Amino acid sequence: MYKVAFLPGDGIGQDLKEVVKLFRDKIEEKYGFSFELNELPIGGKAIDSFGDPLPPDTLKECKKSDAVFLIAVGGPKWDNNPPNLRPEAGLLKLRKSLNVFCNIRPIKLSKHLTHLSCLKCETVDKGLDIIILRELTEGLYFGEPRGIYTQPDGSKVAINTMSYSSTTIEKFAKIGFDLAMSRKKSLTSVDKANVLENSRLWREVVENLSKSYPEVKLDHLYVDNAALQMIYNPNQFDVIITENLFGDILSDEAAALVGSLGLLPSASIGDNKPFLYEPVHGSAPSIAGKNMANPIATIFSIALMLRLSFERNDIAFDLENAVEKTLEMGIGTADLKMKNTIGTREFANEVLKNL
Amino acid sequence: MYKVAFLPGDGIGQDLKEVVKLFRDKIEEKYGFSFELNELPIGGKAIDSFGDPLPPDTLKECKKSDAVFLIAVGGPKWDNNPPNLRPEAGLLKLRKSLNVFCNIRPIKLSKHLTHLSCLKCETVDKGLDIIILRELTEGLYFGEPRGIYTQPDGSKVAINTMSYSSTTIEKFAKIGFDLAMSRKKSLTSVDKANVLENSRLWREVVENLSKSYPEVKLDHLYVDNAALQMIYNPNQFDVIITENLFGDILSDEAAALVGSLGLLPSASIGDNKPFLYEPVHGSAPSIAGKNMANPIATIFSIALMLRLSFERNDIAFDLENAVEKTLEMGIGTADLKMKNTIGTREFANEVLKNL
Ligand SMILES: CC(C)[C@H](C(=O)O)[C@@H](O)C(=O)O
Ligand SMILES: CC(C)[C@H](C(=O)O)[C@@H](O)C(=O)O
Repeated sequence: MYKVAFLPGDGIGQDLKEVVKLFRDKIEEKYGFSFELNELPIGGKAIDSFGDPLPPDTLKECKKSDAVFLIAVGGPKWDNNPPNLRPEAGLLKLRKSLNVFCNIRPIKLSKHLTHLSCLKCETVDKGLDIIILRELTEGLYFGEPRGIYTQPDGSKVAINTMSYSSTTIEKFAKIGFDLAMSRKKSLTSVDKANVLENSRLWREVVENLSKSYPEVKLDHLYVDNAALQMIYNPNQFDVIITENLFGDILSDEAAALVGSLGLLPSASIGDNKPFLYEPVHGSAPSIAGKNMANPIATIFSIALMLRLSFERNDIAFDLENAVEKTLEMGIGTADLKMKNTIGTREFANEVLKNL
Repeated sequence: MYKVAFLPGDGIGQDLKEVVKLFRDKIEEKYGFSFELNELPIGGKAIDSFGDPLPPDTLKECKKSDAVFLIAVGGPKWDNNPPNLRPEAGLLKLRKSLNVFCNIRPIKLSKHLTHLSCLKCETVDKGLDIIILRELTEGLYFGEPRGIYTQPDGSKVAINTMSYSSTTIEKFAKIGFDLAMSRKKSLTSVDKANVLENSRLWREVVENLSKSYPEVKLDHLYVDNAALQMIYNPNQFDVIITENLFGDILSDEAAALVGSLGLLPSASIGDNKPFLYEPVHGSAPSIAGKNMANPIATIFSIALMLRLSFERNDIAFDLENAVEKTLEMGIGTADLKMKNTIGTREFANEVLKNL
């Protein structure tokens, strides 16, 4: 039986915890396929109990598991903590320690939800279906030296280092090319090669690798232009690869096109298991504990885990279909602005019925 | 008489050059106010003639002028040049040499052009009116060390340095607070303080400065969230301040909301004159020489120059009004998708008539 390190975390993480358990049980009942959920502390809750956003035991258990499923960390209570005692620090350390260098963010807008998009309907009338791959373990997030230094005259200087190795770029980009081959054979690499050496190396490695994928149409786009094109014409994109910070910004921008963060799952994969699964919505403190959180991102993240860590594409597909069928019925959580608004638990139950 | 270093540059820079001259003449005729246009080479054209995207003479003349007016640099011809022989290198060196640390980008969508916006009409039915201030002389663009290094095992590592000094942040942010005071007294500072020391210093300096502006409502937003909010609800913003690269990305994203880059001017100011004025659209090689380029960004950039370098807010205001009146007539260049499409020269002439 597969073992999942289960990190519900803070805010609506606690509301959605029950949803994960419901789906686990139903999957066991319907498919005879089961995984164990080993609940562990992370983020704000872990700071409160252990003074550490990623307690050593949590990390140890994660590393021994077949997959890690995290819901959300953070909240106003910990926002003014020193950097190393903030919930995000736990998340960043977890990503780095698991060495999950490729963050997969499908940006999918169902044709039943085009009313949600901030874009004009004609732009998105067939929905959206883009996958953004974001490198997750190098770049400005982790580069050294870093720090704030006081000068002799009392003024201060801050330093961060953006650093990328060709080895990481190559194995990351390879995932992009492989994914493009399984889809429309179109790959967009986003960089800022007109300014940054990091981007020049990025482009060089991606160009070289593209020789092994003669069928994939490769484009390079500057990040500023990508931010613009994402709005002008998002459907020109299929698979996008980019570095850590650009990916952070672009994937949130793309999420806005969809209209609700509550719909978007993510997976972070590396050379070795365990991989890490997280909905992208964050802890949403303002609706925590109110049975209002949209469970779709969580359900889609379960589907990604079934597909990428447990090789059960069949179940993943059924889950995604069950969500689609439920939306077709015109019901959804408040963020979806459907005819009928229902709660987290109620919506999850409808999806289970459609499974 | 004021002296303007005039750098039309490449691509549609050449189409729009005539527009600038027409407006110069008309302003002289109507207001008795005149400035001299001293045309100088930059960008691709300068590379072709002098092997340098910013020839020393151009820079020397710019520094002696009261203002610098640049239209656009770049084009496919020079895209594969080595970094220091690319048109952008000239632009970056010019900004750095003039020490124009504050790039002002008004994101304005006229109520006559809401059909252009990619956003749903209800979001932008009253148009848009945001000003993004982007720091222009520090950060990843200029930080040292930078380079690509080969490791003993043959792999490569790229390094860029993001660096900010509290002195620059402070004088830059001060412009933001002053601008906010002259508008809605609302200021949004965008950073990534949950990850970067640069952003922590940024936030600290901005917070300190805010004590001198008790009337200004200051918000901090992470850059990923800002990219998302810019789409969800752009009218929540009035004045935004941010560092160099974040500003590059966010201002292009905001430009996309407006629907045409051809509408957007910019000014870059510093402690001392000359300041630098540029439309944001770039050289648009595909429409160069076709009398198709939208002259509005250029006209608005002239208005900014009159306002910020020549203290002629009255003429600036008249220019902006003349554009608005012309749009009201239902005419515009192709990018504006109006009832009647006319050419660059013809549109410029209509604006002149409305002046
Ligand atoms: C919380 C933060 C550190 C994180 C990031 O920037 O990676 C978040 O924005 C994300 O995208 O998962
Ligand atoms: C051409 C490029 C170097 C430049 C920048 O990144 O600053 C451009 O994108 C801009 O915003 O003016």
